[in-house]
Amino acid sequence: MSGLMFRFPFRRFVATMPDKTKYIAKSGTYPKGFLINGVSSGVKAKGALDLTMLVSEKPCNAAAVFTKNAFQAAPVRVSRETLQQTKGQGIQCLVVNSGCANAVTGSGGVQDARLITALADKAVLGRGDGGLPSTLVMSTGVIGQRLKMDKISSGVMKAIEGLGSSHEHWMRGAKAICTTDTFPKVVSQEFSVNGQTYRIAGLAKGAGMINPNLATLLGFFATDAPVAVEAVQQILREAVDKSFNAISIDGDTSTNDTIAFLANGASGGPEIDVSSPAYEELKQSVTGIAQKLSQLVVRDGEGATKFVTIRVRGAATEADAKLVAATISNSALVKTAFFGEDANWGRILCAIGYSGAIVNPKATSVSFVPADQTESLRLLVLGEPQNVDEERASEILSHDEFGLDVDLGSGNHETVSWTCDFSYEYVRINADYRS
Amino acid sequence: MSGLMFRFPFRRFVATMPDKTKYIAKSGTYPKGFLINGVSSGVKAKGALDLTMLVSEKPCNAAAVFTKNAFQAAPVRVSRETLQQTKGQGIQCLVVNSGCANAVTGSGGVQDARLITALADKAVLGRGDGGLPSTLVMSTGVIGQRLKMDKISSGVMKAIEGLGSSHEHWMRGAKAICTTDTFPKVVSQEFSVNGQTYRIAGLAKGAGMINPNLATLLGFFATDAPVAVEAVQQILREAVDKSFNAISIDGDTSTNDTIAFLANGASGGPEIDVSSPAYEELKQSVTGIAQKLSQLVVRDGEGATKFVTIRVRGAATEADAKLVAATISNSALVKTAFFGEDANWGRILCAIGYSGAIVNPKATSVSFVPADQTESLRLLVLGEPQNVDEERASEILSHDEFGLDVDLGSGNHETVSWTCDFSYEYVRINADYRS
Repeated sequence: MSGLMFRFPFRRFVATMPDKTKYIAKSGTYPKGFLINGVSSGVKAKGALDLTMLVSEKPCNAAAVFTKNAFQAAPVRVSRETLQQTKGQGIQCLVVNSGCANAVTGSGGVQDARLITALADKAVLGRGDGGLPSTLVMSTGVIGQRLKMDKISSGVMKAIEGLGSSHEHWMRGAKAICTTDTFPKVVSQEFSVNGQTYRIAGLAKGAGMINPNLATLLGFFATDAPVAVEAVQQILREAVDKSFNAISIDGDTSTNDTIAFLANGASGGPEIDVSSPAYEELKQSVTGIAQKLSQLVVRDGEGATKFVTIRVRGAATEADAKLVAATISNSALVKTAFFGEDANWGRILCAIGYSGAIVNPKATSVSFVPADQTESLRLLVLGEPQNVDEERASEILSHDEFGLDVDLGSGNHETVSWTCDFSYEYVRINADYRS
Repeated sequence: MSGLMFRFPFRRFVATMPDKTKYIAKSGTYPKGFLINGVSSGVKAKGALDLTMLVSEKPCNAAAVFTKNAFQAAPVRVSRETLQQTKGQGIQCLVVNSGCANAVTGSGGVQDARLITALADKAVLGRGDGGLPSTLVMSTGVIGQRLKMDKISSGVMKAIEGLGSSHEHWMRGAKAICTTDTFPKVVSQEFSVNGQTYRIAGLAKGAGMINPNLATLLGFFATDAPVAVEAVQQILREAVDKSFNAISIDGDTSTNDTIAFLANGASGGPEIDVSSPAYEELKQSVTGIAQKLSQLVVRDGEGATKFVTIRVRGAATEADAKLVAATISNSALVKTAFFGEDANWGRILCAIGYSGAIVNPKATSVSFVPADQTESLRLLVLGEPQNVDEERASEILSHDEFGLDVDLGSGNHETVSWTCDFSYEYVRINADYRS
C-alpha cells in the first residue's frame, strides 16, 4: 500500500486533532451532602478506574430517563423498578460500573444488578433485606458478558472507604464511568434564588461518536436544592430533551443509556415544586449543565476533530426540525466531508432531502457559520446554489468548531443540535474496541 | 503519531482487501438491437470515461424508478417528465454522464438536461423540435455544479460515432457511468421460454458504501424481449424491490438515484404482458440480474473488505423485517466491528433493539453464518447469550464473505439484504472525494 494513498487525511489528522484537555474542569462548586468516589474494581484491565459511587447523606428525591432500546440492560430494568417501587423517594446511592454493560445477560444479569443494589443499601445505609431499595445502578461496557460480581463487590467496599466531596473526588467519579472517553466530563454550578443558594453538579460519559454509533450514554446530576419528586422528574425530562436528546435521535439508543437526577435538600430552604419561584431557575440551571455535558460528549466523540453546531429553522413542526438536524448529524458522508474540511454541501442537502421532513427545495437555504461570529457563508439561498468562495469555505471548516444553519422556509419551528466529524480514528477505535 | 496506534487495522487492511477484479464480466450475451458506447467527454479530469450512450435500433417500452429524495436532480425531473409524456413508449436512447450530478442546479440545470435529451433525439434519430422526446438522461457526480454543456454535447457526438454491440462496448458503457466505483458492473443473461430466446443485460454503478452514505445509485436493464409497457413497469418495480431496495432503506436515497428498464422487442415473438407465460420467467431473470448487480454494488462499497448477507426471519411484518435488516446494515458500529473482524454481537443486538421494529428480546436468536456453508455459530438463542467459541467466530469473520441470521420469533415474514463493512479506506475516499 502506497503511503500516498493516505496523504491528504493523514495531514489533516496530524495537523488538527484538537487538544481536548482544555475541556476538563479544573475546579468546581459541588452540592452539599453528597460524597463520591471512583475506584478500580478490576473489571477493566490494568487497574483502570471502573466503579463510581455517589452517596447522599440525606435521602433524595430522584428520577431517571432510560434507553428506549428493546434490549434493556439489567441495570436499566432494576433501576427503573427501584424508582417505581420507591416512587422516586428515599434514594441515597448510585453505583456505576464501566467495562461490562451487564446487558443481554438474562435473568442472571438482573440478579447481579439487584445484588449491587442490596450490597450498597447494606454497606452504606446498614439496611437489611425486605426494605425498599435506595440505590440506583448503571453499567457501561461490553455487551453479553456477566459482571464479575466478586470484583464489583469488593469495588463497592473500596469506593465507600474513600468517599469524599473534593473536586478530586468528583473527577475520580467522572473518570471511573468512562469507556472510550478521552477525558472526564464534570460540570458544576452555584446559583441563588431569593437569597437561597443552591449547588448542582453533573457527570457524563460519552456516547462514542454518538448516533448511529451508539456507545452508551450515562450521566447524572446531583443538587442540594430541596425539590419535590414531580419537579425532579419534570426538570430532568425537559433538560434531557434540550441536551442529550439533541445529540441523538429519539429511540436510537444503546441498551444501557441512563440519565439520573438526585436532589437531597442539603441546601435548606423551602421545597421547590413546579409552581415555586425557584423552579424555572433550577430547570434552566440543570438544562444548562446538561447542554454543557452533552456538548462535551460530542467534543469527545470517538475520533472527533470537529465540533459542529447544527441549527435548523423554518421547520413545519418541531419534529421535522429535529429530524433534519438528526439526519444531517448522522450522515456518514456529511461527517467524513467535515473531517476532510471539504465544503461538499451537496451531501448536506442530500441528507435534508431524505430526512423524511417536509422539505420544499425552493424555500430551503443553507449556510456555514464561522465559530468566530464573522459573516456566514451562504451556500444555498431559496433553493439556488450560490457562487461559493471555496477559500472562505475551507477557512471556516479548518477550525475545530463551526456551525451549519439550515432554513427550511416551511414554518416557524427550530432546533439546535451538536455533532462531530467522522475520522480514521473512529474506525480504529471501533474496529478494535474489544481487543 | 505513533505507528502503533494503527497497528491492528492496518494489518487487517493490508492483509485482506479482497481482489475485486474477479467480479468483472469477461464476456456476455447481450440483447439484440442495442448499441452502446462509453467515452470521455472531458467533464472528468485526465480523460477518464464519463459519458455512456445506449441506443436501441427500435423504439422501446421503458420504465424507471427514481429517488424519493426531496431534492430531485434535474435529470430525474426531466426523465420522469419524458416517461409521463410518452407513457413509456418510443424510448430509444439513454444518456448517462458521470463527474457532475446536475443536482441542485435550479432551472438552468433542468434546461441542460432537456438539451441533452433534444441533442440525442436529433443526433441519433434525426428528430427536430416539437415531437415527443425519446431519450432518458441520468447523471452522477458532484452536486451543485452546472454541467459543462459544450463538453457534454461533443461527448454525445463522440459516443454516437463509436456505438457498437460487442462485450467491449458494454464494458466501456459500464465504466463511463462510474464515480468512486473500483470496477465496472455488467451482468447479462440469455434465457428461453416456449422455444423463444431472449437476452437481457444490466449495468449499474455503486452507491458508495450504500446507506446512510448515499453516493448515487444508477442502473439500467435492456432486453430484446417484446414487453408491454405495463409489464415493463411492473417487472422493474418488483425486481428493484428485491435487489437495490435491499441494499438501501426506502426513501433514503441520493438526489439522482435512477434505475431504468428498456425492452425493444428485437428478439421477435409475441408481446409479453403480465398474463403471458413468459412473464414470470422474464421477471425472475430481471430480478436475478438486478440482485447480482446490487450485490456487485455492495462488494464495491467504498473501502469495503467484507460482503455480509443479512437474513431476518420471524418478523411480525415484512416492513419490520426490512427495518431490522436496514438498521443493522446502516450501523457504523456494526460495520466497523465487521472490518475489525470482531465478533461484537452486542452491537448487532443493539441495532435490532433500536430499529423500531417489534422486538421481543426473549424470542430473538442471532447466528453468524459461514460462507462455506459449514455449521452456523449461534450467538444468541431465544434471548440467551451463548458461550461463543471466539476462535470459531474470528475464523468466520476472517473471510471476505459471511452471513448474519436474525430470527425475531415474532411472525413469519422475512427478508434478505446485503451490506459491507466500514474501513479506513471509506473515510479516506469520502474525506477527499472532491479533491
